[in-house]
Amino acid sequence: MKTLGDIGEKGVIAALLENMSSTAAVGPGDDAAAVDLGSQYLVVSTDVVSRASHLPKGMTEWQIGWFAAAVNFSDIAAMGARPIGMVMAYVLPRCLPLEDLKRISQGVQDCCRAVGAELLGGDTKEGSEIVLSGTALGLVDKDKIMLRRGAREGDLVAVTGPLGLAAAGYTALMKGIYAPRSIKALLEPQPRIAEGMILARSGAVTSCMDITDGLAFSIGELSKQSGVGFEVRWCSIPRGEDVERVATKAEVSEEALIMHFGGDYELLVTLAPDAYDRLRGELGGRLHVIGRVAGKENVLIRGDEVVPLDTRGYEHFR
Amino acid sequence: MKTLGDIGEKGVIAALLENMSSTAAVGPGDDAAAVDLGSQYLVVSTDVVSRASHLPKGMTEWQIGWFAAAVNFSDIAAMGARPIGMVMAYVLPRCLPLEDLKRISQGVQDCCRAVGAELLGGDTKEGSEIVLSGTALGLVDKDKIMLRRGAREGDLVAVTGPLGLAAAGYTALMKGIYAPRSIKALLEPQPRIAEGMILARSGAVTSCMDITDGLAFSIGELSKQSGVGFEVRWCSIPRGEDVERVATKAEVSEEALIMHFGGDYELLVTLAPDAYDRLRGELGGRLHVIGRVAGKENVLIRGDEVVPLDTRGYEHFR
Repeated sequence: MKTLGDIGEKGVIAALLENMSSTAAVGPGDDAAAVDLGSQYLVVSTDVVSRASHLPKGMTEWQIGWFAAAVNFSDIAAMGARPIGMVMAYVLPRCLPLEDLKRISQGVQDCCRAVGAELLGGDTKEGSEIVLSGTALGLVDKDKIMLRRGAREGDLVAVTGPLGLAAAGYTALMKGIYAPRSIKALLEPQPRIAEGMILARSGAVTSCMDITDGLAFSIGELSKQSGVGFEVRWCSIPRGEDVERVATKAEVSEEALIMHFGGDYELLVTLAPDAYDRLRGELGGRLHVIGRVAGKENVLIRGDEVVPLDTRGYEHFR
Repeated sequence: MKTLGDIGEKGVIAALLENMSSTAAVGPGDDAAAVDLGSQYLVVSTDVVSRASHLPKGMTEWQIGWFAAAVNFSDIAAMGARPIGMVMAYVLPRCLPLEDLKRISQGVQDCCRAVGAELLGGDTKEGSEIVLSGTALGLVDKDKIMLRRGAREGDLVAVTGPLGLAAAGYTALMKGIYAPRSIKALLEPQPRIAEGMILARSGAVTSCMDITDGLAFSIGELSKQSGVGFEVRWCSIPRGEDVERVATKAEVSEEALIMHFGGDYELLVTLAPDAYDRLRGELGGRLHVIGRVAGKENVLIRGDEVVPLDTRGYEHFR
């Protein structure tokens, strides 16, 4: 009999999607679901974090709360929606000190405040390990929503910020390398809400998702859902300051940290080339072209070399 | 240093509410939160269930899924909203058979379908025990929403169905007593969505909540939030068929099962007396007067005896 460990996270998700018959405007399979409310979509995303799967040792309680909220808002950002609220359910061990819970809760609230969303409510139950399950809600005009599908031949491919920071932070934590900025990036991800709203409002973005599971995986998703190929130029990818140093010290490849690790929570978008300069200005420079939409295959261009892009991402359960 | 076990569930919730500064239309402290969308409220509720806190042994996987969805929709019902969707996040052990997950997921979907809601999406992560965290969404006209506050002197107090069934089911399971209907009521709670919508539309209901934690606790909540007292007549409370027999066999008091156990998920409402006959008709008889709003204290009338009503409910963590 097959277990979840045998089939891995993507297999689990596929099994869950299999017999869902959603008629929602945007159903399972995108960053968030969207419900038609007339002139707007209500965008809904749920993300659960547990000690066992998600939270590096050394994370403070406040960071656990921030993280659990931030990963949800990142999905709202990916659709270009304005966050309106969040609910947060806690499973908590009986022996947890009350002060720890207050710090976790403060982290949740500070993240809500940072993105202008209301903490609407929650639930608490007892369990053997800490689990935080958040649901974020947002609103976006129907004709402005950004989806994973829609990229077109000739579009530019761009990201909203440097990549590999979270991976470098994780590596630094594991190997005892000094890289406080990267570690902070790992433990306190910043949902790109403002960027998402500006990108959506522009009307020039043809597809978007956040880079939760690494750039390569996100490229693969946009490619698959849009039915087009991506050409990514290695030298154009903006990378975090510590990444090269941490990669060298830890003797891991920089490409692995930047392409395949995840945890960066920047947005990956495709857009009409003629809108790039204006949008980059509106985003205060936070838009970096890394390639273009072309053909049917996903490739990485390194100097003169063109290699197929391995779009597998990080998988839980396995 | 105080732990969650020291202060109990209500203390945990109080601590979480303490530094929340919600400006939502209906904030934390009611069955669900409500967000102002113009002419309607978006009603949002989250409920998490874990093996350790909630799920009796012997529950099938399908029932786990149904239960996790149903308790969320019950909060939507309590506000009189029409369910529009649900997201469900799963924490699952790696060794869980895939077939078990499929059955859990089927239970979630069947419950969504039963109340006319869309399963919008979800999330899965690995953890040491099964945790299901659902968030249900509903819509209700702003002038029709039912809240825990609003009960007025002279209102009738009523419930939508027999009480004590879930308690009898739990007792039967624990003591090996034959009571399949009660056990089914415990394991497959029915959210009173249709009843909630009819009650809300009537405009005659002044306060409402579901009876998750027992009738006595719900009475205490409506009383506290409305600033009025409740007189409940013991002989008027409709009770499940097995309750008396199970109580006798198990040598527990029928009052404990009916008043203090919970898990029934019927709705408790206060309403204008002149609307009762019409509403009872619209509900096909599923409305039973159990007392009235009077004075400032909560009392239980048993024959000639009038005793204070102990409004404590079941608490996790302790």
